[in-house]
Amino acid sequence: METSANPAPADATTARLLITCPDQPGIISAVSTFLYHHGANITDFDQHASDPREGTFFLRMEFQTPGLDCSWDALKNNFQQSVAKKYGMEWRLTLAAQKKRMAILVSRHDHVLMELLWRTMRGDLPATIPMVISNHDDLRGEVERFGIPYHHIAVSGDNKAEAEQQALSLLEGQVDLIVLARYMQILSPAFVAQHPHRIINIHHSFLPAFVGANPYQQAWERGVKLIGATSHYVTDDLDQGPIIEQNVARVSHRNSPADLKALGQDVERQVLLRAVRWHLEDRVIVDGNKTVVFVK
Amino acid sequence: METSANPAPADATTARLLITCPDQPGIISAVSTFLYHHGANITDFDQHASDPREGTFFLRMEFQTPGLDCSWDALKNNFQQSVAKKYGMEWRLTLAAQKKRMAILVSRHDHVLMELLWRTMRGDLPATIPMVISNHDDLRGEVERFGIPYHHIAVSGDNKAEAEQQALSLLEGQVDLIVLARYMQILSPAFVAQHPHRIINIHHSFLPAFVGANPYQQAWERGVKLIGATSHYVTDDLDQGPIIEQNVARVSHRNSPADLKALGQDVERQVLLRAVRWHLEDRVIVDGNKTVVFVK
Amino acid sequence: METSANPAPADATTARLLITCPDQPGIISAVSTFLYHHGANITDFDQHASDPREGTFFLRMEFQTPGLDCSWDALKNNFQQSVAKKYGMEWRLTLAAQKKRMAILVSRHDHVLMELLWRTMRGDLPATIPMVISNHDDLRGEVERFGIPYHHIAVSGDNKAEAEQQALSLLEGQVDLIVLARYMQILSPAFVAQHPHRIINIHHSFLPAFVGANPYQQAWERGVKLIGATSHYVTDDLDQGPIIEQNVARVSHRNSPADLKALGQDVERQVLLRAVRWHLEDRVIVDGNKTVVFVK
Amino acid sequence: METSANPAPADATTARLLITCPDQPGIISAVSTFLYHHGANITDFDQHASDPREGTFFLRMEFQTPGLDCSWDALKNNFQQSVAKKYGMEWRLTLAAQKKRMAILVSRHDHVLMELLWRTMRGDLPATIPMVISNHDDLRGEVERFGIPYHHIAVSGDNKAEAEQQALSLLEGQVDLIVLARYMQILSPAFVAQHPHRIINIHHSFLPAFVGANPYQQAWERGVKLIGATSHYVTDDLDQGPIIEQNVARVSHRNSPADLKALGQDVERQVLLRAVRWHLEDRVIVDGNKTVVFVK
Repeated sequence: METSANPAPADATTARLLITCPDQPGIISAVSTFLYHHGANITDFDQHASDPREGTFFLRMEFQTPGLDCSWDALKNNFQQSVAKKYGMEWRLTLAAQKKRMAILVSRHDHVLMELLWRTMRGDLPATIPMVISNHDDLRGEVERFGIPYHHIAVSGDNKAEAEQQALSLLEGQVDLIVLARYMQILSPAFVAQHPHRIINIHHSFLPAFVGANPYQQAWERGVKLIGATSHYVTDDLDQGPIIEQNVARVSHRNSPADLKALGQDVERQVLLRAVRWHLEDRVIVDGNKTVVFVK
Repeated sequence: METSANPAPADATTARLLITCPDQPGIISAVSTFLYHHGANITDFDQHASDPREGTFFLRMEFQTPGLDCSWDALKNNFQQSVAKKYGMEWRLTLAAQKKRMAILVSRHDHVLMELLWRTMRGDLPATIPMVISNHDDLRGEVERFGIPYHHIAVSGDNKAEAEQQALSLLEGQVDLIVLARYMQILSPAFVAQHPHRIINIHHSFLPAFVGANPYQQAWERGVKLIGATSHYVTDDLDQGPIIEQNVARVSHRNSPADLKALGQDVERQVLLRAVRWHLEDRVIVDGNKTVVFVK
Repeated sequence: METSANPAPADATTARLLITCPDQPGIISAVSTFLYHHGANITDFDQHASDPREGTFFLRMEFQTPGLDCSWDALKNNFQQSVAKKYGMEWRLTLAAQKKRMAILVSRHDHVLMELLWRTMRGDLPATIPMVISNHDDLRGEVERFGIPYHHIAVSGDNKAEAEQQALSLLEGQVDLIVLARYMQILSPAFVAQHPHRIINIHHSFLPAFVGANPYQQAWERGVKLIGATSHYVTDDLDQGPIIEQNVARVSHRNSPADLKALGQDVERQVLLRAVRWHLEDRVIVDGNKTVVFVK
Repeated sequence: METSANPAPADATTARLLITCPDQPGIISAVSTFLYHHGANITDFDQHASDPREGTFFLRMEFQTPGLDCSWDALKNNFQQSVAKKYGMEWRLTLAAQKKRMAILVSRHDHVLMELLWRTMRGDLPATIPMVISNHDDLRGEVERFGIPYHHIAVSGDNKAEAEQQALSLLEGQVDLIVLARYMQILSPAFVAQHPHRIINIHHSFLPAFVGANPYQQAWERGVKLIGATSHYVTDDLDQGPIIEQNVARVSHRNSPADLKALGQDVERQVLLRAVRWHLEDRVIVDGNKTVVFVK
């Protein structure tokens, strides 16, 4: 299988720095001077202030590491001591070459799952997939064919807590991201608390329209002219987490609810793929119930 | 001012026939044979059945009138007697050259109003504008400059009923369409009942998301990645009438609520313009709380 | 693998009639009356005249067959004798349930091939795939996994004619459609003549911009802000055949030629898929060097 | 007339710095530290390197001026001496509150002109319009109504050089930007040389497709499924200058050349408006025959 050109190649020498802190003058000077003095060459720099006065400062930058004058760990320690502490920063430093580990939770719909598997296998998504977990056994063959472990954890009214515990055990320490690829179970607050801002869901409507079940049927009944899909981080409030990406497709009176579902599935694939890609490339910072997304 | 080419030129010899009735075999044969025998030449024919079995039949066609073997009124009478009665049709026959009369109700926002005035004056919208009615006097100059009567009817908590009555008197028998071009008053059921499926509103959100007041502020607070606008027929239920057209624009974390408003106003202009054009060109049939829109 | 809802389900009882002929009054009456008298129930009817006067008449309709008063062959014969002959029609009658046979020609890029294979296997494209032919052996495993025969026919400067003859022999009588899924060989006029308006290609640019080789590199050098893809029927003139579908994606100064290629591949998948679907659903009529596409 | 919220409000205290120079480590540190030491507060910072190695460095930033420790002129001088010289920068410092002067050249089409006039008058475009120049007298009334001087300079085969000279004299020292709002004369290299990267044109096709005359007719004849418009800086090569913005609209077999023209005019308005806005907000840097556009 040919490896496609990748929209964001995980360059072997690229590092990324993400920062959130209260805004004040001098931050960019402090950060860029720190990196310059340590031999880093900044190649991409994108900054946002939520408000010109007393807002929050958000930064994503990429820099090249070959000229670094110290080890990666030393750089992190120095940054915390000399810069981050002073400005009260939340920050993370990552290496593009270090692929994130992405677990996928799925039920019976395969369209989103297949897109993620296929893209990852081609090298088109910078991730590894340590496991797929499903409350059904239907998609085992599709997954195992790619050499990926498939765990069937049946969920019923009775065993929901144990099932979640079982999944948490499998995931513990093994994943950087959990993608709900049309996983039709609601996760408990306890589960979500274990993976804050690390669970991405795809909802099959243009949120906040049509929350809850059967959004395509709801959309058809309302007679909307566009249907959509929304990818968001999962929080305790169902369908209310920070939105990462949305898109829509045009429909008409000629389209049945089944048409809306089929057309919508293509939007779901596309929207979730973009949200996941941005997360994997460290382009998303959560800001309360919103997201800052530094798009290429 | 140059007259633009019109996407749907109101050809001097073009007639339109719109039909709604219970579906059954033979309708197209009956209608097309009737017209053929009366010398009409069908040049556009678009049909939709809401369901393959026991659905509703919707039809829009255009035909050329030069070869008609009888008068326009005779054609209508004959159609009712020989075809429409048998199939239980609701129908209307219109002449493209007979421009519809469009009244505009507006408050203080001028962006949508100006688009409608400007397009109509250039001949780009097949309509005449007999009057503009506003609950403020701000936009009088802009309107009267085009030679269009401007009626200021102030509305307060006290005089709402009288104000509506005054507007209804002005409109009575003078209009085929009423456009709420960001008119910030809620019309009473009594007003709406006088003009069923003849009042088009533009709502500044992607309905059903963000009903009610300040939708751009609501959208900003929810952190959506697309904002939208919705044009719909006005019914007694606020923001719940049959949707004619919707569209969206992409926004990001960099956009303030004021940005969303500004970007959204361009979407409002575009969406309302399309809805109004389709109504003026007899492309819209209301189907319960939805619309059938026969787009070119 | 779950079978998705299909945007255009190949209903077991749906037939389609496509007509091209010189326009004149009475055609719709003749056709619809013929079908009515034979017990057909028309459920979708879309007509286009290329010009109000002396144009060409194009029609696509769907009707239900359960009430037919004669055999399918008798219907065809009767239609030719009673209607088609009189009006000089080119026409075809098809059954939605009779899936078309689609051969795929491919070189080394797998993104478009995989989309077609995957959609067809899920039942999402109404086709069967009797064979894949490639001038390379790279993708054999991907194809055979689906149980589809894979024929490797190497092409060199010397054996081009024999290679084409070999492919033609394999295809003869076995296919209703040939899809060039990024097949990097130019077909000879002799090959094309064997399959007129039955070969669909995907070109990786927004034609007529960037004909020929390396269109993404050309687009990057020109600094365009949108890149595109074009699906067209293959004719003797390279990149000049009737266009079926096009779409674009936004790019910026941040995107490298490799980015353009990666983003473009998603557009190629989407555009070719739509063109192929419309062909399979009998929605496309060729009109000289253009197409009439009766979109749902 | 109500003043709309502006997508990019010309904040009274906002300054902008644009830089182009050969890339090397330390630039961001030098620039941000310089500004920090002079009391500037950076509120938006967007950087691009054309290549990770030996590329060109592009930067656009916004900063707040209230805390500046020196005059505006002193800041400029200091920046040149302490920073720009060392890195070989081309740079410009501008104040958002200082609106650019935009002359408009037009022939007979009014759709783009009206959009620019109307937006500017509402305060929606941060510009002043010192004059409109036309080779026809048709649009005088529309322009003078806004209180803007209208200069009619007839152009014929004989007087082209004098006409251009007359226009250049009117423009000299009076304008920061010249917009060709469907101006149907080709400017000479001598004219262009007087205003390098200061003349913006709108071409009514998706360049590089359909260069030259009658692009909508060309597009109709080719049977494309999308039409477009392109805004670019004017250079000596006709239709070949650096592209600032492009967009497209969907068309079908039902659309005549006149329809394409009408639909295209809406795209032209939108595309030129965005290009002009970005130029006025100092978001565009020319990079050879391409542009870097720092979009909000």
